[in-house]
Amino acid sequence: MQELPLSKVYQLLEPGPVVLLTTAHKGRANVMTMSWHMMVDFNPPLVACVVSEANYSFAALRSSRECVIAIPDRDLAPAVVKVGNASGRSIDKFAAFGLTPVPAGCVAAPLIAECFANLECRVIETRLVNKYNLFILEVLKAWTDPEKINPKTIHHQGYGKFAVDGDIIELASKKP
Amino acid sequence: MQELPLSKVYQLLEPGPVVLLTTAHKGRANVMTMSWHMMVDFNPPLVACVVSEANYSFAALRSSRECVIAIPDRDLAPAVVKVGNASGRSIDKFAAFGLTPVPAGCVAAPLIAECFANLECRVIETRLVNKYNLFILEVLKAWTDPEKINPKTIHHQGYGKFAVDGDIIELASKKP
Repeated sequence: MQELPLSKVYQLLEPGPVVLLTTAHKGRANVMTMSWHMMVDFNPPLVACVVSEANYSFAALRSSRECVIAIPDRDLAPAVVKVGNASGRSIDKFAAFGLTPVPAGCVAAPLIAECFANLECRVIETRLVNKYNLFILEVLKAWTDPEKINPKTIHHQGYGKFAVDGDIIELASKKP
Repeated sequence: MQELPLSKVYQLLEPGPVVLLTTAHKGRANVMTMSWHMMVDFNPPLVACVVSEANYSFAALRSSRECVIAIPDRDLAPAVVKVGNASGRSIDKFAAFGLTPVPAGCVAAPLIAECFANLECRVIETRLVNKYNLFILEVLKAWTDPEKINPKTIHHQGYGKFAVDGDIIELASKKP
């Protein structure tokens, strides 16, 4: 994996792909599926996300204050759904669903080798955690896989139905 | 336009489409383009969004505490980019770019006739506005256009480059 300039991170998340969120807590890594995230600032890249307190990852994220956002392409959609259907309380989801945890540079949570991008994050804002389960993260380091060219991401429409990226259109814009 | 049950609103926003945000302030409506938004809760549907204080819409949203999130399909992409490139400080963007404002049911901000979905919202949380420009909205009423079947949305990758919804894949999921 190659390091990606932090100024380009928003281009990965702004389109709204389904992502995987990894955590590490009490010596054990876990991974969940997440669609409720958005960019909050460009650089340093800030990302908001909602992790339900019903998820096993919630306590890990809240207490470790670290995570990795890993972005899967369409080929990983079956694994993404299996990760979403299972809980880290009972199984090792990496081993069960063919995802390879890789040590990160700045955080204890692992990168995922099969994902085309991985963002190492720390929690910087928790005021809305109690009421809304909403965390704000700062991306500390970003990685992309140079062998995955123009990956197609997936966008969840509910109940396991996903739109895959199709045509690309380019229009003259003044805005990043 | 037909009313959409509030329980289905998340299915429109969770995929991460580019949206238009309308406001009304001091007797004048405005519209901006927005990609930084996410779901926060299912029902009542709560939505977080970031509206930069550099945007003319910021003051309108903060003081009126109301807005409409209108979702365009791919045919509106040229208008969406023009809205993003212009400021309501100097022009009436509805008239300039062929968008038709329609009175809403619960809020002063207008619906947009050409959009396949419109969500009437009020601001319910402002604690993160000063530091992050982050608002939390509650969707009060939702509308969809029954004549627009399976609309393809657009997802911004930066600088006017958009991925349009392509293939739809369906996998067995336990999750909404």
